[in-house]
Amino acid sequence: MQVRTLAGMMELLPSDQLIFNHIKNIIEKTFVEYGFYPLDTPAMESTDVLYAKGGGETSKQVYEIKSSKNDKALRFDLTVPLAKYCALYFQDLNFPFRRYHIGKVFRGERNQKGRYREFYQADIDIIGHNTLSLYNDAEVIRVMAEIFELLNLDYTFHINNRKLLNGFLDYIKVEEKTEVLRIIDKLSKIGQQEVSRLLIDLGMTEKQVEQLFLFLESESFDIDHEEYREGKKELDDLMENLSVLGVKKSRIKIDRSITRGLDYYTGIVLETFLNDHYEVGSICSGGRYDNLAENFTSQSLPGVGLSIGLTRLFYILKSENLLAAFQDHLYDFVIIPMKGCERHALSVLSALRQAGKKGFAYMENGKMGKKFTFCDKEKVPYVIIIGEEEMQSQKYSLRDMSTGEQEAMTLDKIIERV
Amino acid sequence: MQVRTLAGMMELLPSDQLIFNHIKNIIEKTFVEYGFYPLDTPAMESTDVLYAKGGGETSKQVYEIKSSKNDKALRFDLTVPLAKYCALYFQDLNFPFRRYHIGKVFRGERNQKGRYREFYQADIDIIGHNTLSLYNDAEVIRVMAEIFELLNLDYTFHINNRKLLNGFLDYIKVEEKTEVLRIIDKLSKIGQQEVSRLLIDLGMTEKQVEQLFLFLESESFDIDHEEYREGKKELDDLMENLSVLGVKKSRIKIDRSITRGLDYYTGIVLETFLNDHYEVGSICSGGRYDNLAENFTSQSLPGVGLSIGLTRLFYILKSENLLAAFQDHLYDFVIIPMKGCERHALSVLSALRQAGKKGFAYMENGKMGKKFTFCDKEKVPYVIIIGEEEMQSQKYSLRDMSTGEQEAMTLDKIIERV
Repeated sequence: MQVRTLAGMMELLPSDQLIFNHIKNIIEKTFVEYGFYPLDTPAMESTDVLYAKGGGETSKQVYEIKSSKNDKALRFDLTVPLAKYCALYFQDLNFPFRRYHIGKVFRGERNQKGRYREFYQADIDIIGHNTLSLYNDAEVIRVMAEIFELLNLDYTFHINNRKLLNGFLDYIKVEEKTEVLRIIDKLSKIGQQEVSRLLIDLGMTEKQVEQLFLFLESESFDIDHEEYREGKKELDDLMENLSVLGVKKSRIKIDRSITRGLDYYTGIVLETFLNDHYEVGSICSGGRYDNLAENFTSQSLPGVGLSIGLTRLFYILKSENLLAAFQDHLYDFVIIPMKGCERHALSVLSALRQAGKKGFAYMENGKMGKKFTFCDKEKVPYVIIIGEEEMQSQKYSLRDMSTGEQEAMTLDKIIERV
Repeated sequence: MQVRTLAGMMELLPSDQLIFNHIKNIIEKTFVEYGFYPLDTPAMESTDVLYAKGGGETSKQVYEIKSSKNDKALRFDLTVPLAKYCALYFQDLNFPFRRYHIGKVFRGERNQKGRYREFYQADIDIIGHNTLSLYNDAEVIRVMAEIFELLNLDYTFHINNRKLLNGFLDYIKVEEKTEVLRIIDKLSKIGQQEVSRLLIDLGMTEKQVEQLFLFLESESFDIDHEEYREGKKELDDLMENLSVLGVKKSRIKIDRSITRGLDYYTGIVLETFLNDHYEVGSICSGGRYDNLAENFTSQSLPGVGLSIGLTRLFYILKSENLLAAFQDHLYDFVIIPMKGCERHALSVLSALRQAGKKGFAYMENGKMGKKFTFCDKEKVPYVIIIGEEEMQSQKYSLRDMSTGEQEAMTLDKIIERV
């Protein structure tokens, strides 16, 4: 039979998986250090929960599960499950609720490079009850800045506040605000000309479109409108908080064209671009929303959240040859015993492990050359060879695999060196 | 609408999730320390891959995915995907290949306590090419022993070698060996009487059944048969290796009734029981197999592997009230600023984080009592209160939440204390 992995599934070779996990661990560790709870909701939810909001474009991509009794489907993001979670366990949760979730989601996207049908998202959200202070918007951005610094990325946060655009559209008397925001969201993908066409199709006048582009391009274009002023004040506040929290100014760009496609954002919105790879799109997005779970509960749950497309980020780093910085190896040492010395090798192995060194004993039959090839491929830095003589003298041959030099030494010395 | 989580999905409250992850992290950390690669195969595979082996009982539980074009289904274990992986990437892998995989699997089991339809398995396997030394059987058991010691469990490995039983059945001239092993596997669940009945139904004589039970119950019942002798020698060897690797003798019980239901085991087989909770069944099982991927490749890939039912283990620990030992809290401190001191609080927060302390600033509106209630619920050990006076003097009130005592001190002192 033809062995294969389904299209759109990222499946990595071990060396890449190691790096993937290294990155995932940095993300997870930082989430925990900044005080976010881990959460883990099922990959499968009932379709009425998943489609509670309507679904729209996404519902076309949902993998539904065959089942005669129940309607079940794979989750397509980590936000709907969070909304359900907050509604379901409302009485037991302590607000503001700070949670992270690193998990797989599924979407039947058209198969193309960098677009996976199963992919990891790494989400943080802070959910309040009735109110949630603006400080939290700075907090989630601070966390992501920490991660991108740890990952040594050259990135910029593009930040906006929807209230600016909503206020401006109101000011120039445009009605279809939600639809306009959705079209502006496509600016970086389809360009200004195409966006103009769509806006005019929607019923905006040429004058309005012209004003809109002037507004989008200039940070100093101010208007006298209440919602606009509120949005401006929130942005100023955010900048000040970010600065106190230690996010570098050079990492932030106010970008009035950022809107995020989805309806539910109501304040700060953010996308994150790699400076030399703007064209690959945002690697981390999100924003402020007024009501997380309105389809599931009457409780008012405002929140703010950001999401890293982990699988996508990894794909970009790999295809842009940026993985070298994360190169990792699994073993500090490998022990190769001669025939008859296997059990002695195990006692040496135990001692090395007790000392916190990582490695194992290569016990398979075969020529020495084959065993060294194994170690070379694995980038093992030190090989310990144990033969009759070594067993007698309690001094073992330590081979430095980078130089090829070999030296006999005691176990204590080996532990020091490895 | 009725908010709900699908039956059979474990979904935890944050405090439990923290413990779950703590356990998961210990498992993962140990896997890495012992030199296993992380692997992460897709939750979805084509049905022809998943059913390559036939499927049997399990195939009735598979959640198939609706799709007009392809046949896809959710994975029901981590072993079939590993077999596919080894076949697919054979040329790129370096054998012996040591991998771990902690991931979710899906089975449409009848809904009952402790049986989940989505659950985590934490697997380690070592896969050889053509041969794989017996040392590896001890190695995987060593790793699991480390984990159970770290988790402070009172456990026993029940170990057997299928060759013993196969040899014995051959010796007493029983034909249907595979079927007999499958029936013996049920001994702990359905008892001796029912097993006898099934064996006689299968065509064994009463004499044979009697001999079989004598054999199962006694470790000293020896026979003169080649396969039996080989199995015995392997078991002796294993015990010796385990002892050198530091696995305590008291943790091991040779148990001739352990067979593991599945066909593909060919040597050492193992189940793990909690000493005071034998009735809840095995928490970690596996063994040696001759050929991992025979349905996917002509390459001979012998292996040995063990699997922890992580979700099940967690369920058992929780229902037996054994979670207290893992109690954990997320925050070292929480800062509560008075009105007008918020930004100053952020600078204190930054300093504490820089010093490696975990916490955040509680910035929401509300009465002091509500804020302290939040901190109590979260088991926050220290609360830092910042008001006008504190800002002036640069000495902040540190409240020890266990005693209720409050003391003004400098930031440096706070960092020392927290």
